[in-house]
Amino acid sequence: MSPLEKIDLAEKLARFDERWSPRIVAELNGQDVKLAKLEGSFVWHSHVDEDELFLVLQGKLTIELRDGRVELGAGQMLVVPRGVEHRPVAEGEVHVLLFEPAGTVNTGSVRNERTIDDPQRI
Amino acid sequence: MSPLEKIDLAEKLARFDERWSPRIVAELNGQDVKLAKLEGSFVWHSHVDEDELFLVLQGKLTIELRDGRVELGAGQMLVVPRGVEHRPVAEGEVHVLLFEPAGTVNTGSVRNERTIDDPQRI
Repeated sequence: MSPLEKIDLAEKLARFDERWSPRIVAELNGQDVKLAKLEGSFVWHSHVDEDELFLVLQGKLTIELRDGRVELGAGQMLVVPRGVEHRPVAEGEVHVLLFEPAGTVNTGSVRNERTIDDPQRI
Repeated sequence: MSPLEKIDLAEKLARFDERWSPRIVAELNGQDVKLAKLEGSFVWHSHVDEDELFLVLQGKLTIELRDGRVELGAGQMLVVPRGVEHRPVAEGEVHVLLFEPAGTVNTGSVRNERTIDDPQRI
């Protein structure tokens, strides 16, 4: 036993089913580790001040970019630098781990019905 | 195709075999994402200014702490806060992903033959 919390990704993923609604599972050095379930197409957006890392845990995720696309499977990741417009597209259900600065908003500088300002910590 | 680099964790891990020698595979927001192969016991150490995340990709890793221990399998992670003494112990070969501030030294405030000041980027 220890006072530090072991974080089991599968157990955390089982706690929610909502798509495009990242949950915070760890915080360190001013950064958040988030888990999200994705399905279908998200919105085009960019983050002014935040680089964003996507690590696919399950499924196939395409990150569309204005000048190309990157297809990611389980065990593959991509860093989208600040300022780079991107649109995640999930073929079926996709589970991802995100690393990004605390306070990063999922839709970046775009605001719409998918914007989540205050993600839940689980 | 895209100018952004897809990072395949298995492909990166296949590029080196050295134990206790983290490689940098991505950099974002002043943080490094590293991969390491661990086997056996490391040294007790702590990091003065850096929280450190261990995500186990393969194998069984025990993080010994002065007041307990945490056992991690694949898909499980732990954040060791700055200042907390810890000693990773790997049962057999273990593959881990580390997330920590750029410049974090593997042995923290301890310096010995296992200290690596300038990890390779792969």
